[in-house]
Amino acid sequence: MTYTKAWLNYEKMDDSPERICVALSETGPIADSIRRELQIAFEAMYGVAPIFADQTDKEALFVTFHCSKVHMYGEEGYLVKAVPGKITVESGGQRGLLYGMFAMLERLRMGEYAFTLAQTPSNPIRMLDHWDNLDGSIERGYSGNSFFFCNEEVTVTERIRDYARMIASVGINAVCINNVNVRGVAAELITARYRAPLVQLSRIFEAYGVKLFLSLNFASPKRIGGLDTSDPCDERVRAFWRERIADVFEGIPNFGGFVVKADSEGEPGPFAYGRTHADGANMLAEFARPYGGIVIWRCFVYNCQQDWRDTKTDRARSGYDNFIGHDGEFADNVILQIKNGPMDFQVREPVHPLFGGLKKTNMMLEVQIAQEYTGQQRHVCYLLPMFHEILNFRTFCGQESDTIADIVSGRTYGNRNCGMVAVTNTGDDENWTGHDLAAANLYGFGRLAFNTSLSAEDIARDWIRLTFGLNQKVLENVQAILMMSWPAYEKYTSPLGIGWMVTPHTHYGPDVEGYEYDRWGTYHRADHMGIGVDRTPAGTGYTAQYNEPNASMYANVETCPEELLLFFHHMPYAHVLKTGKTIIQHIYDTHFEGAEEAERMLALWRELQGLVEPASYMRTLARFENQAEHAKEWRDRINTYFHRMSWVEDEKGRKIY
Amino acid sequence: MTYTKAWLNYEKMDDSPERICVALSETGPIADSIRRELQIAFEAMYGVAPIFADQTDKEALFVTFHCSKVHMYGEEGYLVKAVPGKITVESGGQRGLLYGMFAMLERLRMGEYAFTLAQTPSNPIRMLDHWDNLDGSIERGYSGNSFFFCNEEVTVTERIRDYARMIASVGINAVCINNVNVRGVAAELITARYRAPLVQLSRIFEAYGVKLFLSLNFASPKRIGGLDTSDPCDERVRAFWRERIADVFEGIPNFGGFVVKADSEGEPGPFAYGRTHADGANMLAEFARPYGGIVIWRCFVYNCQQDWRDTKTDRARSGYDNFIGHDGEFADNVILQIKNGPMDFQVREPVHPLFGGLKKTNMMLEVQIAQEYTGQQRHVCYLLPMFHEILNFRTFCGQESDTIADIVSGRTYGNRNCGMVAVTNTGDDENWTGHDLAAANLYGFGRLAFNTSLSAEDIARDWIRLTFGLNQKVLENVQAILMMSWPAYEKYTSPLGIGWMVTPHTHYGPDVEGYEYDRWGTYHRADHMGIGVDRTPAGTGYTAQYNEPNASMYANVETCPEELLLFFHHMPYAHVLKTGKTIIQHIYDTHFEGAEEAERMLALWRELQGLVEPASYMRTLARFENQAEHAKEWRDRINTYFHRMSWVEDEKGRKIY
Repeated sequence: MTYTKAWLNYEKMDDSPERICVALSETGPIADSIRRELQIAFEAMYGVAPIFADQTDKEALFVTFHCSKVHMYGEEGYLVKAVPGKITVESGGQRGLLYGMFAMLERLRMGEYAFTLAQTPSNPIRMLDHWDNLDGSIERGYSGNSFFFCNEEVTVTERIRDYARMIASVGINAVCINNVNVRGVAAELITARYRAPLVQLSRIFEAYGVKLFLSLNFASPKRIGGLDTSDPCDERVRAFWRERIADVFEGIPNFGGFVVKADSEGEPGPFAYGRTHADGANMLAEFARPYGGIVIWRCFVYNCQQDWRDTKTDRARSGYDNFIGHDGEFADNVILQIKNGPMDFQVREPVHPLFGGLKKTNMMLEVQIAQEYTGQQRHVCYLLPMFHEILNFRTFCGQESDTIADIVSGRTYGNRNCGMVAVTNTGDDENWTGHDLAAANLYGFGRLAFNTSLSAEDIARDWIRLTFGLNQKVLENVQAILMMSWPAYEKYTSPLGIGWMVTPHTHYGPDVEGYEYDRWGTYHRADHMGIGVDRTPAGTGYTAQYNEPNASMYANVETCPEELLLFFHHMPYAHVLKTGKTIIQHIYDTHFEGAEEAERMLALWRELQGLVEPASYMRTLARFENQAEHAKEWRDRINTYFHRMSWVEDEKGRKIY
Repeated sequence: MTYTKAWLNYEKMDDSPERICVALSETGPIADSIRRELQIAFEAMYGVAPIFADQTDKEALFVTFHCSKVHMYGEEGYLVKAVPGKITVESGGQRGLLYGMFAMLERLRMGEYAFTLAQTPSNPIRMLDHWDNLDGSIERGYSGNSFFFCNEEVTVTERIRDYARMIASVGINAVCINNVNVRGVAAELITARYRAPLVQLSRIFEAYGVKLFLSLNFASPKRIGGLDTSDPCDERVRAFWRERIADVFEGIPNFGGFVVKADSEGEPGPFAYGRTHADGANMLAEFARPYGGIVIWRCFVYNCQQDWRDTKTDRARSGYDNFIGHDGEFADNVILQIKNGPMDFQVREPVHPLFGGLKKTNMMLEVQIAQEYTGQQRHVCYLLPMFHEILNFRTFCGQESDTIADIVSGRTYGNRNCGMVAVTNTGDDENWTGHDLAAANLYGFGRLAFNTSLSAEDIARDWIRLTFGLNQKVLENVQAILMMSWPAYEKYTSPLGIGWMVTPHTHYGPDVEGYEYDRWGTYHRADHMGIGVDRTPAGTGYTAQYNEPNASMYANVETCPEELLLFFHHMPYAHVLKTGKTIIQHIYDTHFEGAEEAERMLALWRELQGLVEPASYMRTLARFENQAEHAKEWRDRINTYFHRMSWVEDEKGRKIY
């Protein structure tokens, strides 16, 4: 199958040096990758094959790599200094050299020849989680099938190397290749059955500085171990895991550890045996520790059998309620993986209160670039502005540095096992990500995880130029599209932070009452007079899970950010927002605006005909046409629902069905 | 797999004759079946094997069968006269003898020894349509898998003979074994591939007087004929069908003809070639005529890509609109198969206006005993009262005999190719029908099709006694359950004829807005003030498809039957019904009542512990417990929806969520 090079699509540059000399004395797989990458890049950009030798002359571009064990930017950071004809890349480790090299190539591709780049990664762990199943399907995958698995086999292909190149180029250093819902034969990934191809695969990743992780099934002792229990405190269970984990670390080079979804949405876990999450995670961590391995334990734990009649139970509370009592109990090579919000990757949610709550526990921020609830890579929705907001949220956890970015990077509490992870959006589609523009989220997540101070705009600009070249019109239009896409999607879907209102199961397209009477804890409680969930102390009490002043800010209608108003409060439609509009008029207006913005994005893309590679243009045009049409469906269904329910007319008299 | 004998579960009688002599001079497969049935029955009931000889003595029960070609009750009718010690069964044909024998056995099993039974079947064709797929699944099947197909093979087993016995015992004379949606290899049922087992299967049916039918795919010339068209007027297409149809009739004994779903819900048909339904049906009928074969052509044709915003298009109109202009064009061995109502087997619909409209066309009434929209054989819903109402509906078609029963029986226009068909409810479950009490619909449909003047109560009483024996308490309670079940189901589901409000795709359980914004043409248009679809001349004009005075009756709110009020009119919740209740209060009241009635049915069943065979008792108890619980879910979701929407309080102050 053919596929694009995405942002590694090196184009011929106007100016070329006559010769390129590269001084790189390091050896090993990463050093080899650096040489391979330079060869690929320089031949494509300049038509010149680099000479790997510590010699130069005045016509040559001379690139020197220098690795010193005690470098101030550390093993993964780099200092790149470029003047015309001479570039030096320094780091405390080969991975830093690799990242520095990619950073250097980016600048060169943008036509810059004199620059200084100095960067230490913000987050120790910068990870991608694949929800790939061994049959080749991808849970919540919107860009084809898996390139890791097919027909219950691990597939090792050249595409995986190209994938490793892509993600290394933006600083990703960890990948979990299988779905956190570990079903069927996937439980056997930790056995000899899949060992040989996993070793091959891990070697490919290793050469690009990426650690391999696997999701495991907590019930493996029963499922594949022949035991009658999976109790983490049972000696036979411990013996099973001791042997399995040792075997995996000793058998697979470059292995990082495990991701575990336990006691969540029907997956097995320690609860069945009266044990805590800490009991379960620490047991696994104990056996991974001798190998420097870590256990990443997900916090997505809630009652998914809720009765919709029950207004006391609040799914938003559950992550905090389940874990806050165990702060300090988890081993230092366990990381709790916490979704950005308390619900599930909605277009708008408050941040997860565990980030401000846990103080003695390693944490990772989990976001989702697979756009499960944000258009499924059929709609463009550039998520970096959202991620930027989340990272900069102040938790008031009582420390100086108290933003989410501070906490997950380790700055706040000094953790070393922490960072950011994205549920990723790739598959075997020709363009990797279904929508060509969805690649901006993959690229952007890597860049942001490496440097959380980057702005969404700057990341978008870099991605556009690396992907589509240096045409100014393309840059302007695509930049405009990307930056307007998340607000537009929010406008034409569910209003003011209430979330959901999607088709059950698929999560694509509008269905206002689709989850309203279901068991998932995702309700909007709309009636004739108003809408929203009271999560104040008078309601479910969820706001109290935040530190002050956040708790009071959310609990008070006057200070609650209006984009989250219906998440925290049940409000009458007649309530007047700060814009001077009632909530109902706000709903009507934003839905008309959002659909118009989808049309506007389509128009902006149409202007690029002839300026973007034709196949990419047509592929993306079809997606924009679909989005504009589908945005109208969202607009009409949401507006009709609220019009029928509230019986309030649109002030502007527009057509509501 | 073991399975019950359902209502052919002969029990030992208290009094037995010493000997039984049977005089039956007929030969052939049906006569052999009569002998076999008498042997099975008499041995079970009396412990006496019948002697097949024209001789008797005064201790013996003497049963004489007499077949005379010109009998006044015709080939399928019978006259049975019984006095103690002597029974005669007369008919104009062996099938009449078979039916007479089963009728006689029914009386004997009820302890009657002196009776006269005289019956000519009301309908020439009394048919069951299986929606069985060749992979063994059953579309809208709620009682296990197919007993005709498995893994793309036809399965010929002893169970099929038992099935033939069951349906013959209630007078069924035609069965179509495969789904009207003819997918995949099912198109090859008319080829040599499945010939051998189909011949075996047809012989089994033949011995019980049941003709075999197959559903065919109208696009077979392209699908399996190697042609590039399926245009019914193309000579190569005609040649294909001439050969195929001749081959099927010549190769399969006892073959009756074909069922066709064309240009319906995505199935292929003549429209693709600019041809009419008549062009398509007549072409097939032409080639079936030499063999006495018939073509049954379904009228379930509508636009299933409707835009919910479009309030002019009305799915209810479509059957009539598509076919009325072709009245008189169909060949005399074509039958139009018309669903009882214009929508799709809802718990309450008006009758289909084609019955009063078509005057020169053969018609069959299609009902569904698979309870797709009436509880899916998890809820008990005895449908015979509904069928009785439908049959007795006066169409005012301008003839003396103008009920639906008159029309489909042939009395109105003198047709001979006509009758009744049910989408059937059997599968390979132990009890055949999922819910033990769902068998009453299978039994009852056969009885009613044979004699449309029977009451639902009488049919229920017979079925109960044949199934559960003669205990008076069992009779009373099960009779009470059956007779209250349809009204109860109607009460706790969608109100006043509006229909739907079910979970999309599965059609099980409440989802008020589940189809409201979808493409299926099934809307309730509920808003804050009211609900219903205006189908009067001021609305979609559907009412004009009925003859007067029905058209005016439906169009006028004052005369429209209230159980159909919301089907025909958009009404304010405040509208006062003849009961003195507003519509909104009616909705609340009926939903509380319906859920209470589900509890009552459970209680009535519980009283039968020890009186009903334990396995059947427990199986059915579990269903009733589920129904009572699920009825509450219906109650709460429907009431909550309307309460939130209307903002009107329940007068009785009951709990609405």
